[in-house]
Amino acid sequence: MSNTNSNLALVLNDAIKNDQFENALIAVKGIRPVDLADVLSQIEASLAWRLLERLPNRATVFSYLEPETQVRLAREFPRASLAKLVGEMPADERTDLFKHFDQSQRDALLPALAQAEREDIRKLSAYVEGTAGALMTSDYATLVKDMSVAEALAALRVEAPDAETIYHAYVIDQQRKLLGVVSLRELILSNPEALIKDLMVRDPIHSKVTDDQEEVAKKIARYDLIALPITDEKGAMVGIVTHDDAMDVASDEATEDFHRAGGVVSTVGNLKDATIGLLYRKRVFWLVLLVFGNLFSGAGIAHFEDIIAANLVLVFFLPLLVDSGGNAGSQSATLMVRALATGEVVMRDWMSLLGRETLVALCLGGTMALAVSILGYIRGDEVVALVLALSMVAIVLIGCIIGMSLPFVLSKMGFDPASASAPLITSVCDAAGVVIYLFIASQFLTLG
Amino acid sequence: MSNTNSNLALVLNDAIKNDQFENALIAVKGIRPVDLADVLSQIEASLAWRLLERLPNRATVFSYLEPETQVRLAREFPRASLAKLVGEMPADERTDLFKHFDQSQRDALLPALAQAEREDIRKLSAYVEGTAGALMTSDYATLVKDMSVAEALAALRVEAPDAETIYHAYVIDQQRKLLGVVSLRELILSNPEALIKDLMVRDPIHSKVTDDQEEVAKKIARYDLIALPITDEKGAMVGIVTHDDAMDVASDEATEDFHRAGGVVSTVGNLKDATIGLLYRKRVFWLVLLVFGNLFSGAGIAHFEDIIAANLVLVFFLPLLVDSGGNAGSQSATLMVRALATGEVVMRDWMSLLGRETLVALCLGGTMALAVSILGYIRGDEVVALVLALSMVAIVLIGCIIGMSLPFVLSKMGFDPASASAPLITSVCDAAGVVIYLFIASQFLTLG
Repeated sequence: MSNTNSNLALVLNDAIKNDQFENALIAVKGIRPVDLADVLSQIEASLAWRLLERLPNRATVFSYLEPETQVRLAREFPRASLAKLVGEMPADERTDLFKHFDQSQRDALLPALAQAEREDIRKLSAYVEGTAGALMTSDYATLVKDMSVAEALAALRVEAPDAETIYHAYVIDQQRKLLGVVSLRELILSNPEALIKDLMVRDPIHSKVTDDQEEVAKKIARYDLIALPITDEKGAMVGIVTHDDAMDVASDEATEDFHRAGGVVSTVGNLKDATIGLLYRKRVFWLVLLVFGNLFSGAGIAHFEDIIAANLVLVFFLPLLVDSGGNAGSQSATLMVRALATGEVVMRDWMSLLGRETLVALCLGGTMALAVSILGYIRGDEVVALVLALSMVAIVLIGCIIGMSLPFVLSKMGFDPASASAPLITSVCDAAGVVIYLFIASQFLTLG
Repeated sequence: MSNTNSNLALVLNDAIKNDQFENALIAVKGIRPVDLADVLSQIEASLAWRLLERLPNRATVFSYLEPETQVRLAREFPRASLAKLVGEMPADERTDLFKHFDQSQRDALLPALAQAEREDIRKLSAYVEGTAGALMTSDYATLVKDMSVAEALAALRVEAPDAETIYHAYVIDQQRKLLGVVSLRELILSNPEALIKDLMVRDPIHSKVTDDQEEVAKKIARYDLIALPITDEKGAMVGIVTHDDAMDVASDEATEDFHRAGGVVSTVGNLKDATIGLLYRKRVFWLVLLVFGNLFSGAGIAHFEDIIAANLVLVFFLPLLVDSGGNAGSQSATLMVRALATGEVVMRDWMSLLGRETLVALCLGGTMALAVSILGYIRGDEVVALVLALSMVAIVLIGCIIGMSLPFVLSKMGFDPASASAPLITSVCDAAGVVIYLFIASQFLTLG
């Protein structure tokens, strides 16, 4: 696929340079919009826009481009041509593009747009990023409850060119209050004289404009919806979120959690396009914080300096024991963070999960204690073996409890539970591990 | 939502016990199938089946239950009643249920099913778990290319009750070869006399039965499909995967990667239902392996025992330096693993990414070196500060290179790149960190 794309990009590049647009249009025939967008993004903007302008499905192809590429291409377009393209875009994509424009681009374009489009951009761009309002589109199909099925089908034929989906049509009253939903499937199966009000599913599943986009995606997944209607604070319908947008949100949210869990602050966009400066900023916070956090481990060591000096064999096992707590704790945190994200587990499950986690931790700690005490006996003696075994059980237990509790605690404090990252858990467990290990050692080993 | 559900469960429990099924049916009216499934799973199986049997949409509700609950309920059903329920289920759900039955349950039910359903189960259950074949359903709508639009709409009305979606209908020939796809949207917009062959999109996007389910989900997401047709090795159409199943797969795959990255072997299903034994088995492998892996750190320490004995201040900074490499490496691995999973980055990007990662690592290492050398100067002297600064830069650099390379190496070796878990990266970076730190220290510090 990717090789075909680069070859096609070369062919198109030459054709556009030589003004052979007919050849170029033949070459892209049958290429799907998302693939064509990939190809166009490999061609210089000053050439690409000239082909894009001539594509019959230009608005769809343009919508699939990355925002940065869209903005770059938009600069090349003559104003009238850009206004035409933007006018053809779906309302939600058009608004996203506008958000990425700088002020001069906005000022240049706005007067060239139709009144309805300007109004639409103004409304949609008012919603806070990350909410249902910022995700939804205003291109949806509506019906009136007193229509017959035949009238509804006729109405959908008129609405179809502009609506993102006509498979679900929403029944609204004069105040645009959402009364019900009818599927196209039901419509074509029903008697043409039947009335929409008798056919519609009343009180349909919906979200509010202010709802978190993650909640919207979860609702669409849970109820297997093609689209979810969005209402404003007065219950009036203002948009829909479609299943494909929900899938993108779910993927982005998973990426964000994944990054947080690995100690990277929020998302970095497409990794390939991320700059060094951006990556540095997203990563340095946790790393430096943890340098200072690790001072607690150091303080623990300093406190037990004498026992270490007298028993240097302890240092040999220090990384092993300390890491084991962090490793077990990371596992616990990982399981918990993802279960909280998918909704499998909720806050009030914490107590019951803690009991089970304790038992799992004792089993894991016991197994690891067995392994480490054999090593301790070989390298030291039976006292060292005992110290190691006891320390291991205690450290793994504490690590697991920290690892599973931290996501809940962070969540209670208003942070994303995924901020319970591996580096954070590791550092907290390390400090605890050092103290536990050296304290137990000081009980069994002498200073000389 | 959850509280409403538990209250409803109590009400239903009482109603069923007292044979007041009319009351129970009134109470569940308007409750959506997935929510009703939640409620039923809170009621004892010996009661729940009696209500389920009486629900008009029992097959839909039953399909939303967790597999374990389905099997438990199935044991309570009289055979004829169970056969009826199973016959009403969508083909893919029915096959999944069968896979969860034990042999005696299968033997009891099979003879009671219709011939076509038996055949369907036999065919669908032959596909390997995790492939398109195991995910797809055989309930889809087909058309013939010489039909007119009016004939096609009539055909879809007949097929609708059994098809999972009629929004996309697939055009096949007599050998069931997939020729094209038509959307219901186009059908209702077209002239009733137009022919399907002139309307259909030829060579539609499709997957093979043997394709990985992750690839199927990615295709549905990339092309914003409602359903993806699946063909066998001869190009004959055998099923479809719908958008909602793709969304579930994407979520499950994200969970699996998330768990792997946290050092938990494969998935544990719903975390709340996981037993202690299961959690122990999924976690103990990495933990014990890493105990032995940490011996390399220990060996490094043993090698430099004299320099440690002479400069105990080194031990104070040991966890800090060693953790920093693991932390930075975990970040690199996290970014890389997720980018490989979403397809943002592919194998051949490695070399170009390595260059950028080196620069990011030097910036991060430099910042952290500054922080740690101040601490070193306070606690030790300027030589210690220098040793710490140099070690930090080297350790962070090596950590980042290991962290970003390991996912690629694992992928090359045929493992899931997500196996480059935080615990593994931490252990590898720890061993490297110990050696780097103590080697640099031995160059600057004396033995006495």
